[in-house]
Amino acid sequence: MPAHDEEFMARAVALAARGLGTTSPNPVVGSVLVRDGRVVGEGWHERAGGPHAEVGALAAAGELARGATAYVTLEPCNHHGRTGPCAQALIAAGVTRVVYAVADPGALEGGGAGTLRAAGVDVVAGVLADEAERVNEVWLTAKRSGRPHVLWKFAATLDGRSAAADGTSRWISSAASREQVHDLRRRVDAIVAGSGTVLADDPHLTARAADGTPSARQPLRVVLDRRGRVPAGARVLDDAAPTLVSRAETPRALLDELHGRGVVSVLLEGGPTLAGAFLAAGLVDRVVAYVAPTLLGAGTNALGGTGITTIADAIALDVDDVSVVGGDVRLSGRPRR
Amino acid sequence: MPAHDEEFMARAVALAARGLGTTSPNPVVGSVLVRDGRVVGEGWHERAGGPHAEVGALAAAGELARGATAYVTLEPCNHHGRTGPCAQALIAAGVTRVVYAVADPGALEGGGAGTLRAAGVDVVAGVLADEAERVNEVWLTAKRSGRPHVLWKFAATLDGRSAAADGTSRWISSAASREQVHDLRRRVDAIVAGSGTVLADDPHLTARAADGTPSARQPLRVVLDRRGRVPAGARVLDDAAPTLVSRAETPRALLDELHGRGVVSVLLEGGPTLAGAFLAAGLVDRVVAYVAPTLLGAGTNALGGTGITTIADAIALDVDDVSVVGGDVRLSGRPRR
Repeated sequence: MPAHDEEFMARAVALAARGLGTTSPNPVVGSVLVRDGRVVGEGWHERAGGPHAEVGALAAAGELARGATAYVTLEPCNHHGRTGPCAQALIAAGVTRVVYAVADPGALEGGGAGTLRAAGVDVVAGVLADEAERVNEVWLTAKRSGRPHVLWKFAATLDGRSAAADGTSRWISSAASREQVHDLRRRVDAIVAGSGTVLADDPHLTARAADGTPSARQPLRVVLDRRGRVPAGARVLDDAAPTLVSRAETPRALLDELHGRGVVSVLLEGGPTLAGAFLAAGLVDRVVAYVAPTLLGAGTNALGGTGITTIADAIALDVDDVSVVGGDVRLSGRPRR
Repeated sequence: MPAHDEEFMARAVALAARGLGTTSPNPVVGSVLVRDGRVVGEGWHERAGGPHAEVGALAAAGELARGATAYVTLEPCNHHGRTGPCAQALIAAGVTRVVYAVADPGALEGGGAGTLRAAGVDVVAGVLADEAERVNEVWLTAKRSGRPHVLWKFAATLDGRSAAADGTSRWISSAASREQVHDLRRRVDAIVAGSGTVLADDPHLTARAADGTPSARQPLRVVLDRRGRVPAGARVLDDAAPTLVSRAETPRALLDELHGRGVVSVLLEGGPTLAGAFLAAGLVDRVVAYVAPTLLGAGTNALGGTGITTIADAIALDVDDVSVVGGDVRLSGRPRR
């Protein structure tokens, strides 16, 4: 592998990350065109319906694309969608080598590598695959599993409580942590809560700036309400964002319903019972925990309803990030399967 | 303040730390003697009954102590204990300037600064006081409060459980975390557990190396057993270390009893109820939590019995250390008073 492949792919991953939150239902993708060791064009997928990353990079490079190497975080597409197949565009521009990180898992979109090779292009796969997987985790998970990617976010005290005995829970986590949660909301297609949470806390479930201003883009609000308990006056039913009240019988049924509506990513903000049901069903792809450095010793547990009774069955997380946010400790990881 | 005072005091603090775990009931103290900008002698308090830090530094410096500056993490003592007063020793050696970090809180030992000043020595107090307080936290807390310093250690899952529903709890935390706990045990005078923990887990409460070898020094094992429930065959009653079964009615009464026996530091390893009682009484000086990146959703809560019912009364910790230990997140902090 040429010495600089990883360096240019890292740049492509960084470009891909710029699309996080605005490309759904499409993946995030970054691309860098390099000729004679110099970057001659860059591009990334900015929004659904907008140009693909490779097309942006080719446009920036112009005639300099001829004989260049294209670095792409995801295998170039092979199909005629809204923007035409990238594999053909790369061939037409005279690119002679394509390095990509992750294979396209789609039955329809896959196959770009074969098209490129058939046209005599030198193709290398798997460079910085882990990094490219991570930046595109939501879309890849959804594509591979045929359901939305599910992120469970919770805030708890150091002893695992999400509310005190009298039900009070406001500001368990720090202001900085709460701001991050609004960032998470902005990036997902749907926020899911259970009717119990709606009845207990009457949350708004919108994405807002630190000063309270609603974000321009609002995810779909979803309330799982099998027994029809959500009152008409609940804040989640106002017109600040669209809301779906679902009577789905299981987490899987709810995800199937959302998948049918084109939802790629879900933020689970439900209480302990809903989270427990999703975890028990193996339907949580990432956990983000904000642990506040406080102790209660009583109150609502952050998690219940998993059905786990013995320590050997505990759900282990592969933690890939630990950081301190405004005094809270933030852990992020994926349940081990 | 001369530019290098903090640099030399930082060295003295590092020397003091070498005594952690072996000086009880004495403080840890470090000392550096500096003449013409060069270190001419170093010393630290290694064990109770051994030479004080200043005496060690003076011995190392010999005649070079004349005209030197002495850096000491704790105000030099003024009393005739087992080793003679350090203030007099510094004067006799011809030291002309003494810089110390923390005043001696003892009624008897205090006053060394006054003796030094009366002898014409230039005395500066408070340099790196926070760092020196931290390294000597156990002794200073015990001295100021007239009771042992109490460290509550617990291990829990990310959702705050210390055992699963069926009571299983072994290896909630990582091997590296468990090794750290044995380090904690080696450093304290006493380990306290409740009879409930003894009945549930039959712990040994000894300090051991990773391979199971008992440490040379074993802390006093203390079981709070008001109702006389601990069975004669309990492992905590074997001859591996001395054991005190106490019928003290309150945490404070237990600490008074231990204080009367010369115990300066206590490691609280009790279960949720005992820890809750100590926290509710304001008798926990430091909390060390090992949070394992696993989820249970049921089982024993790591903390109970605090009597706290509303979020505003949650016990906030001033966290001064967050680290990752063998995959667990370790938080260490002091309850805010």
